[in-house]
Amino acid sequence: MAKDLLFIFDTTLRDGQQTQGVQFSTNEKVEIAEALDSLGVDYVEGGWPGANPIDSEFFDNAPEMRSKLTAFGMTKRTGYSAENDSVLAAVINSGTEAVSLVGKTHVFHVTQALGISKDENIENIKASIAHLVANGREAIFDAEHFFDGYNADPEYALMCLKAALDAGARWVVLCDTNGGTLPDEIYKTVAQVARVAIPGSHLGIHAHNDTETAVAGTLAAVEAGARHIQGTLNGLGERCGNANLTSLIPAILLKGTYRNRFETRINDEALEGLTRISRLLDDILNRVPLKQAPYVGSSAFAHKAGLHVSAIVKNPTTYEHIDPITVGNSRFILMSNQAGRSTLRKRLSEAGLQVEQDDHSLSRILALVKERESEGYTYDIAQGSFELFARKELGQMPDFFNVKRYKVTVERRENNFNHEITLSEAVVVVEVDGERKLSVSESVDELGSDRGPVNALAKALAKDLGRYSENINDMRLVDYKVRITQGGTEAITRVIIDSEDSQGRRWSTVGVSANIVDASFEALLDAIRWKLVHDNVTL
Amino acid sequence: MAKDLLFIFDTTLRDGQQTQGVQFSTNEKVEIAEALDSLGVDYVEGGWPGANPIDSEFFDNAPEMRSKLTAFGMTKRTGYSAENDSVLAAVINSGTEAVSLVGKTHVFHVTQALGISKDENIENIKASIAHLVANGREAIFDAEHFFDGYNADPEYALMCLKAALDAGARWVVLCDTNGGTLPDEIYKTVAQVARVAIPGSHLGIHAHNDTETAVAGTLAAVEAGARHIQGTLNGLGERCGNANLTSLIPAILLKGTYRNRFETRINDEALEGLTRISRLLDDILNRVPLKQAPYVGSSAFAHKAGLHVSAIVKNPTTYEHIDPITVGNSRFILMSNQAGRSTLRKRLSEAGLQVEQDDHSLSRILALVKERESEGYTYDIAQGSFELFARKELGQMPDFFNVKRYKVTVERRENNFNHEITLSEAVVVVEVDGERKLSVSESVDELGSDRGPVNALAKALAKDLGRYSENINDMRLVDYKVRITQGGTEAITRVIIDSEDSQGRRWSTVGVSANIVDASFEALLDAIRWKLVHDNVTL
Repeated sequence: MAKDLLFIFDTTLRDGQQTQGVQFSTNEKVEIAEALDSLGVDYVEGGWPGANPIDSEFFDNAPEMRSKLTAFGMTKRTGYSAENDSVLAAVINSGTEAVSLVGKTHVFHVTQALGISKDENIENIKASIAHLVANGREAIFDAEHFFDGYNADPEYALMCLKAALDAGARWVVLCDTNGGTLPDEIYKTVAQVARVAIPGSHLGIHAHNDTETAVAGTLAAVEAGARHIQGTLNGLGERCGNANLTSLIPAILLKGTYRNRFETRINDEALEGLTRISRLLDDILNRVPLKQAPYVGSSAFAHKAGLHVSAIVKNPTTYEHIDPITVGNSRFILMSNQAGRSTLRKRLSEAGLQVEQDDHSLSRILALVKERESEGYTYDIAQGSFELFARKELGQMPDFFNVKRYKVTVERRENNFNHEITLSEAVVVVEVDGERKLSVSESVDELGSDRGPVNALAKALAKDLGRYSENINDMRLVDYKVRITQGGTEAITRVIIDSEDSQGRRWSTVGVSANIVDASFEALLDAIRWKLVHDNVTL
Repeated sequence: MAKDLLFIFDTTLRDGQQTQGVQFSTNEKVEIAEALDSLGVDYVEGGWPGANPIDSEFFDNAPEMRSKLTAFGMTKRTGYSAENDSVLAAVINSGTEAVSLVGKTHVFHVTQALGISKDENIENIKASIAHLVANGREAIFDAEHFFDGYNADPEYALMCLKAALDAGARWVVLCDTNGGTLPDEIYKTVAQVARVAIPGSHLGIHAHNDTETAVAGTLAAVEAGARHIQGTLNGLGERCGNANLTSLIPAILLKGTYRNRFETRINDEALEGLTRISRLLDDILNRVPLKQAPYVGSSAFAHKAGLHVSAIVKNPTTYEHIDPITVGNSRFILMSNQAGRSTLRKRLSEAGLQVEQDDHSLSRILALVKERESEGYTYDIAQGSFELFARKELGQMPDFFNVKRYKVTVERRENNFNHEITLSEAVVVVEVDGERKLSVSESVDELGSDRGPVNALAKALAKDLGRYSENINDMRLVDYKVRITQGGTEAITRVIIDSEDSQGRRWSTVGVSANIVDASFEALLDAIRWKLVHDNVTL
């Protein structure tokens, strides 16, 4: 049976940019567009040329892509012709292959928000779409507030859509602008529109996640006939975000019901880049990736329950809805206080430590894990520290260096200009290869700002570790998390540090103490030791 | 038309605890259970008594609730009778009104994971449920991996369900354990089960969010006849989380199609507590609340100031899918002081500060709040610091004392007995009533343990504040929370301190700095100043 074509329209760079606090630079836009092109989406909507200087600059510097670069704008204003509306002209002048124009289909928004007549609005839609076509552009009409408009006045809403189609729009996209429409209603409305006004092969859907159902609503629209879906990477977007392409794309490519009926320009090989692309966007936004993100999150294929680990190892397909490799993610077996021996062996072997099933150290490690977790350690997250701790118990942990003592000072005082300044200073004494080394660092960064005692400690520790210095210079602290595991004055602090290196490895380590500085120091030490172990540094 | 009853089953304390890195204390479980009870869910599943010491302790200390407290366990093991299976006995002995037992319905899991015969499994289900009923408990059967099991062998899967129902189960709950089933398939399967095996009035749904459709899948099951829905607050749970009750509950109570057909024990008034309860859970988990969370996120009703601000102000219902007040959230119009002024006046008057509507300081305070929140401050939580900051802007903040400087030292070294010890010491210099006072304290508690640099600072600061000493001796630090608001090496630390006094007052203050000690110091200073203001200490 021939498969239907389904078109993927990405609006990360336009609607995604409406997110509170998000403003991409031109270079970032280029980087994201290239990633989307490598994935194989059909359309990359780049922004609104003319409305925003960075968007205009992006269109001037847009990369060569197989994906169709798309400019966004709005239908012409009443009182101007399509030819002499300067706002529309700026959009067309950006020279993209495709152009999306948003327009009204909801009576309230026509007469109240715009303050024009119903006929004038239809005239604006017609003239604008016809103008795009006359200029050789693929025209896409975004019907704003369509679902609410359809409820308020279905006849008028459909007239607006038909005006766009008749004027030559390649796609008419139904937008649930407020995000309040549940999948059931999306299904019914899209099916009705497809039956009476716009054939499915010209019909698109643009959903928002205000009811946490944008992915399902988009799939419902496809069931109802729509063949063009809009969304953003990681569900970026205003309020609760847009429909999440990072979840929609694997559903369509991997789930039987869709895989058997549809094809897209995205192939299985490109799909394996999905996790990487999702993390790239977080990197650009300087966000910590959402662990629980479907398909691409680091917890998406993490198994905790101790009872079934042996069955998971035997036959993972019965415990996972897809193979994590298909989206470039990986399976993860967690250590926790419920873990049994088989979980432990699996975890150890993932860390390259082979231990026989009847090895006595397994019971000892299990008991110690339990004891340390009751003290506040967490080896679920801090896999790096878990590995070091197990290595030590198994007699496989090299004694790279010893910390003899440290001392950190934090001061706040007035400087000579009567400004209050804070400053931290750390002294660390380590023994490497039998030699005692003293290092001192202060916490001041390139801009002269104090970065605090943990920063000073990290710098002092890294400063003089003899022949390990090269390895340590290759690592970077990327995240630092603090949790108080018992409240009040008896507070115990747990610090988790995430590190990465030039090989793209990323590892987490943990420290626990009533003293926050000491807990941080312990996690720092583990981070360095993990790096030395994995660089195969020999004593 | 009579409405159907829909039952809400919360498993935050049981399945939610399967989340990577989550382990509630008994007190935290009690606090969450009380919040769920105030909301009005039908069932609160508290954990697995016997399997986990904290879960057992919780059941011993569970609060009185209108919600039915539910213990979780598994069906009896082959080789034991229901009466002499110690695992099942521990569950029953916890004495809850309702008991959920998870059991197998998927042939693979019966014969491969458990390694028993199909008949033995059915026998285990029957005997376990009958035993619950004989003990006067409301019995709930959780059919693990049901949707995959139904695909693999529908006849056997249905036999398992019927065995539970016939043995007296009040509810038979279909679990999509791997979370891979899309809403369409959930609908079809639930409808079929309701038709041939279990009436909808006895049928429940338990969905996971691995395809980002758990909310929609749960609603699809309700459409297909299920009348019991399981989920967690904030969608907490293993991998990608469970179905999110924080999104499901408002959908059912507020969206026309559900509101007109169903009723639940949750009323409109309780629904207004939803945002508060969602944030409470994040607080307990020490997580930054997800801004884009549907219904309860701080961005869920944030409007970017664009063309339509006046239209939004005039008629918000056309721009919002629900009124934010109905879920205890609020509208936020960016770059528009109009919306903020009345909220601000309300907050100020709550702190006893009356300000006229046209007072210029309102705009100035709004702008400063915005600026400081972008630096990492949060005045939602730290009401105490907000009040002090507003007082200062309004010229109503007494200048009780000035900190001239401080210095904190943290040391780790070996003591005379070759044990490693840590020790912190703080010197604080303050000016009170024109007099300069030096104080020094160390961080050692009654047991000789180091409590860290913040403890030393707090003690030094409190040690000699002249005539304020009596007030300060009356306050106690009850909680200390640290969050990193930006990741990586640019990390900014936010410290929140909760204090209380002998009059039962409790207040929160905040400090922000790249230096964790300095952020803590700032929050400590605010805590003391708040106490002095509220004790009406005069200069």
